[in-house]
Amino acid sequence: MNLRTPGPIPVPDEILNAMSKPMSNHRGPEFKKTLYKVTDQLQQVFSTNSDIFILTSSGTGAMEAAIVNTLSSGDKVVCATIGNFGDRFGQIAKNFGAQVNMLRFDEGKAVEIDSLRKSLVADSNIKAVLVTHNETNTGVTNDLESISKVVKGEFDKLLLVDGISSLCSVPLKTDDWGCDVVISASQKGWMLPPGLAFISFSERAWKAHSESNMPKFYFDLAQYRKYFEIGQPPYTPGLSVIYALDLALDAILNEGMEKIFNRHAQIGKFTRSSIRSLGLSVFPQEDIASNTVTAVKSPENLDVTKLIARLRDVDNIILAGGYGELKDKIFRIGHMGYTQKSDIQEVIEALRGTLPKLGFSIPTEKIQPA
Amino acid sequence: MNLRTPGPIPVPDEILNAMSKPMSNHRGPEFKKTLYKVTDQLQQVFSTNSDIFILTSSGTGAMEAAIVNTLSSGDKVVCATIGNFGDRFGQIAKNFGAQVNMLRFDEGKAVEIDSLRKSLVADSNIKAVLVTHNETNTGVTNDLESISKVVKGEFDKLLLVDGISSLCSVPLKTDDWGCDVVISASQKGWMLPPGLAFISFSERAWKAHSESNMPKFYFDLAQYRKYFEIGQPPYTPGLSVIYALDLALDAILNEGMEKIFNRHAQIGKFTRSSIRSLGLSVFPQEDIASNTVTAVKSPENLDVTKLIARLRDVDNIILAGGYGELKDKIFRIGHMGYTQKSDIQEVIEALRGTLPKLGFSIPTEKIQPA
Repeated sequence: MNLRTPGPIPVPDEILNAMSKPMSNHRGPEFKKTLYKVTDQLQQVFSTNSDIFILTSSGTGAMEAAIVNTLSSGDKVVCATIGNFGDRFGQIAKNFGAQVNMLRFDEGKAVEIDSLRKSLVADSNIKAVLVTHNETNTGVTNDLESISKVVKGEFDKLLLVDGISSLCSVPLKTDDWGCDVVISASQKGWMLPPGLAFISFSERAWKAHSESNMPKFYFDLAQYRKYFEIGQPPYTPGLSVIYALDLALDAILNEGMEKIFNRHAQIGKFTRSSIRSLGLSVFPQEDIASNTVTAVKSPENLDVTKLIARLRDVDNIILAGGYGELKDKIFRIGHMGYTQKSDIQEVIEALRGTLPKLGFSIPTEKIQPA
Repeated sequence: MNLRTPGPIPVPDEILNAMSKPMSNHRGPEFKKTLYKVTDQLQQVFSTNSDIFILTSSGTGAMEAAIVNTLSSGDKVVCATIGNFGDRFGQIAKNFGAQVNMLRFDEGKAVEIDSLRKSLVADSNIKAVLVTHNETNTGVTNDLESISKVVKGEFDKLLLVDGISSLCSVPLKTDDWGCDVVISASQKGWMLPPGLAFISFSERAWKAHSESNMPKFYFDLAQYRKYFEIGQPPYTPGLSVIYALDLALDAILNEGMEKIFNRHAQIGKFTRSSIRSLGLSVFPQEDIASNTVTAVKSPENLDVTKLIARLRDVDNIILAGGYGELKDKIFRIGHMGYTQKSDIQEVIEALRGTLPKLGFSIPTEKIQPA
């Protein structure tokens, strides 16, 4: 099977094998060694000296952790959203009592820096800005460095970043860009099965934590910090994924972050040009298109559900549709983590065979990738 | 290694192997089939027709889910606690704004039915009772059926049950006993790695949900119910543990619950009599002693930390100490799930060899188990 959803992604065999390791005591000395080792390595990938904690949850759990650990009921925040996952970030803050200014940009677009600046000028009581680095649903990567220059440099607000589908694949300089909280999830660029999330937490975030009154228990990072001192997690963690993380981080740091970022940039570009060679359009513009997931505009009259089902049943290729308003309007090809050019070529060839059968004719002059 | 902590527990090889299965699409038709199949099987183990949802979290996450999905800020609840995990259940409710009457019983004792009754007589505004079925820290199993007769039969309150270390090992009749919410966690009797929790939710609990104002997002069961209808989880689940769950449930139901309960009763009894044969005492009385974990009273002057370290380093046997007030006063032997008599015999022999070296002499007339 060629699993090309934007997470879970295929996991290399040696990492999958680590998932079968026998159970061990998460309160013993071996686990302590592993916890300290992988946390140190996570800091390297996050490019931060801040605390990093491992949560047993999906990425959404870590989004909740980012919010409940820094904010109080009634706090005013700006949620700069460019799609479903950005909306979710804001919704979580709302559910926990924050006053959220949903600064929405059209789907397929990135955050406009000027609009963001205006929203912060308009209300000096804004405490934090929530932003998605890479919107998995639209295949758009925000210019987080420029966003940070406004949020931190000009207004000095708390900056909470959903880096779920960007971290470990796309440059995200947590400390250099002053990101107070950054989250990610294991089934994305980390080449791991789902089950764990990671969260970095700056000194400034700890200050906000000390003032935060949002109710929390399972995600209360104060407990994670306290137990980290004795080399333990506060609650029983997803051990098997931590075994796998241990190996994956060695592989990641051995390859080196620059190489990994370049590899993702290349595979992203290759995917987009191959898509265009079929006469299809990439949903966002080239300069903001994601290097971890490509959203493809569905041609008019093409039944996306049928396309996805056929690729699955006939070609054993798993693509994803769009969520929410983008349902039936796009389909998505994941290429984060452990993705080879040949994996993408297989998708392109399958599309070349299938699209005409569903009524979309591929222009002959565009058959060869640029 | 003979891992005898009260979770994680050793996982049978064929179930461990399932953890290495390649990733798949949790929004595809195969996953849907699996989700419906394992949910149906979970209902059989929980002995309920109510909804059951699979959470990607530890058991503590499911405790939080039990509370935030049924209660509102200001609600009065009784938390009948016999140890650390009971205290945690009450603390979560407090953190989310409930008014909690902590009805504490001495460690090593079970809930006294009369005291519980009095607490409900004393305040007619109590909305719910929180109770731990099996207190993992003290090795005591509460008489949940009798508790339920008071909470449901006499007072008709919401009954929220922490069945983390009892379900699938000890009889827990969710529907017959009128338990509105019951939770468990994968690394206990289920013979699985950690990473998943399970929660059953009655119609009465859904009614409470509709009135509940505690803030929630990741654990909001309304989302789980909505997505369940299309055969999906709302957020990316711990896929690998679900693969393993699929196999484990077949094995569990194939063996049959009655057989499993008997096996646990036997191994519990065997462990306790073997412990007594060494001249040691079991912490709780025999009639309330747990069949999933045995808490052993530490003899005076015995250094429990040293004992545990020595068993680990010399005998490759992993026991657990006590938490909180019981630190240094007890040590614990887990025997839930896949535990053989020989696993316990190995522990007993190691104790027989080690205890004298730490200054505790084993009475010769008690060497043979009863």
